[in-house]
Amino acid sequence: MPSSLPLAMLIVFGSAKLLSDLFERIGLPGIAGEILAGVLIGPSVLHWVSPNETMKALSDLGVLFLLFSIGLDVRLADLLRVGLLSTFVAALGEAIPFLAGWGILLAWGATPHAALFMGAALVATSVGISASVLKRRNLLHHRASQIILAAAVIDDVLGLIVLAVVSSVARGRFNIAEIVLTAALAAAFVVVTAIWGTKVVSRIFPHFHSRLRADEAQFDVAMILLFSLAVLAFYAGVAAIVGAFLAGLALAGSADSRVRNLTRGVTELLVPFFLAGIGLNFDIGIFRSRSTVLLALVILVAAIATKVLGCGLATLPAGWHTAMRVGVGMIPRGEVAMVAAQLGLSMLILNAAVYSVIVFVVVASALLTPPLLKIAFTGPMGRAP
Amino acid sequence: MPSSLPLAMLIVFGSAKLLSDLFERIGLPGIAGEILAGVLIGPSVLHWVSPNETMKALSDLGVLFLLFSIGLDVRLADLLRVGLLSTFVAALGEAIPFLAGWGILLAWGATPHAALFMGAALVATSVGISASVLKRRNLLHHRASQIILAAAVIDDVLGLIVLAVVSSVARGRFNIAEIVLTAALAAAFVVVTAIWGTKVVSRIFPHFHSRLRADEAQFDVAMILLFSLAVLAFYAGVAAIVGAFLAGLALAGSADSRVRNLTRGVTELLVPFFLAGIGLNFDIGIFRSRSTVLLALVILVAAIATKVLGCGLATLPAGWHTAMRVGVGMIPRGEVAMVAAQLGLSMLILNAAVYSVIVFVVVASALLTPPLLKIAFTGPMGRAP
Repeated sequence: MPSSLPLAMLIVFGSAKLLSDLFERIGLPGIAGEILAGVLIGPSVLHWVSPNETMKALSDLGVLFLLFSIGLDVRLADLLRVGLLSTFVAALGEAIPFLAGWGILLAWGATPHAALFMGAALVATSVGISASVLKRRNLLHHRASQIILAAAVIDDVLGLIVLAVVSSVARGRFNIAEIVLTAALAAAFVVVTAIWGTKVVSRIFPHFHSRLRADEAQFDVAMILLFSLAVLAFYAGVAAIVGAFLAGLALAGSADSRVRNLTRGVTELLVPFFLAGIGLNFDIGIFRSRSTVLLALVILVAAIATKVLGCGLATLPAGWHTAMRVGVGMIPRGEVAMVAAQLGLSMLILNAAVYSVIVFVVVASALLTPPLLKIAFTGPMGRAP
Repeated sequence: MPSSLPLAMLIVFGSAKLLSDLFERIGLPGIAGEILAGVLIGPSVLHWVSPNETMKALSDLGVLFLLFSIGLDVRLADLLRVGLLSTFVAALGEAIPFLAGWGILLAWGATPHAALFMGAALVATSVGISASVLKRRNLLHHRASQIILAAAVIDDVLGLIVLAVVSSVARGRFNIAEIVLTAALAAAFVVVTAIWGTKVVSRIFPHFHSRLRADEAQFDVAMILLFSLAVLAFYAGVAAIVGAFLAGLALAGSADSRVRNLTRGVTELLVPFFLAGIGLNFDIGIFRSRSTVLLALVILVAAIATKVLGCGLATLPAGWHTAMRVGVGMIPRGEVAMVAAQLGLSMLILNAAVYSVIVFVVVASALLTPPLLKIAFTGPMGRAP
């Protein structure tokens, strides 16, 4: 066994937990500390750990288990109750960022196709960061948290459609039937799994305990469900984490405390790899050109303001406080933005500078969300409003 | 996120648990089923999963957590009580396999250097398989289990020395001072960590609970100790799993049920990747040449018989039953054999056929040990003797 794996584990896990503790001590959210730990140990600063295949896998597993464990803590009925509102939140929270990203890149002098890709990169929220903050601060039972989770799932389906449309346009072969099929498949997967998953699981799951020989049969079955739905989600076109969330949701009523404790162990070990993993992608190269820095800052401000505006406006019927919380909770961008950036780069539509701007927005929005969420939920002075 | 990770997780974890359950149903040890699952899904049979970097990392983490959790279940005093006996077990259990491997390859017409490498490949026991069986069957409190664990740690240090000597000889620059230094460093690491680790940890560990802000501060600190000792073990020249075992041992008195439950979750998820990972390495290519098959079978029989003989003889003072159990428990070969094989191949001392013979012995000895251990502990009819 090479030393590199235990050493990398030690550096990532240790630095994430250390900075998380330091941040909490000075009143900042620990999660921002864990992301910053990734920036510090990554290629741009100390260069102790590089974002290789293994770190990517641990990060992917971390966010998979994070969303699974959040699904375990949420009741489907609560999500369905905010379903219609969340659909508006997702839709308006995608339309405004798309227009902003597209407009800014056109004004910056980029090609129309590049502008479309920047729009697509800004649409989809990556719920991992907000979910992590809400879970760690025991805020999942808030109405705003439930809107954020439901909207994030719908947002992922919509984001997929936007990306499919944009890349079809860029390829010059826009096939409406194909797009509709993609959208229908993704939506069908989410609806069927969400509605029927709980019913099927609650009927089947208890039987495994008596039928299987393994000591931890229920946990084993839960893991198999988690990986199966993550795979199915991927083939249905949505993010694997949506499948993981739906798996947790399906098990929420059936899983006993043993399954929850064992899941907690995996989550506690792996989530720092997800959070620090975001920071690892930070590329200092962006600061070499002044115009790139300017673009990055403009896009970052737009990315934040448009989500807060779009999602907040849609949530206004639920009250001002809830609207602010939902708006802030939907800020972080993640996988979909990275996919759009990589796709644009590989299709020679985006250049390296615009690519690194998108990566910067992902890292910076992840870093800024935890403190903003903390303020939105407890007020700037830490008092609950 | 590519689908390949959730899909690979599903295939490896699912097939390992499925075969484990089937094996237990027909009275065979589930662990052999998990190893066989790796053979089936691996490149030689179905080719669903190949042994890539991520699978290797999950496998390495699996055995690291396995040995850590076994350390948590063992008391240092029990190991020290069998310390002298275990030293004999390790020494005699290395000398006889070394002579057998060396003699057989000379008789087969290999070069003297190749014969030395085969000897070195057969010396070191890989305790993961036996430890997994003993833990899963609740046999860790047996005197034989304690001898196996203590002997495996000493065996690892001795195996390192043998490998260092053999590769010095093969390189033609045998430096006695360097070998002595290597041996002293490894032995010092094990002794110092084993004796002082528990004392230091039991004094420091309780403070973290009150001082740190994290919800799972004790688990976080346990993880950092685990990775730190794994890294130190590697730099001291012994296997990372020895460091993991010592970390568990140091925490055995201090860790509460919360730390144990969270560790259990990680272990339950990752150990199948270690077990199936052994099977993934199986190479069907060995069966292409009749003389290679013959050599593989002769070496396999020798590898098994000489460990049983050497370790059993050394344990005879503790009684016939204990001697058989220890002999069988020390059969599996693992990392050290693979390192010797890869080193020999890269130094052009071993050819591809002899290399694949060593890999075959690792997989086959891992597959055969669980049923043999079951017989040694409970008798062929499943009754405790």
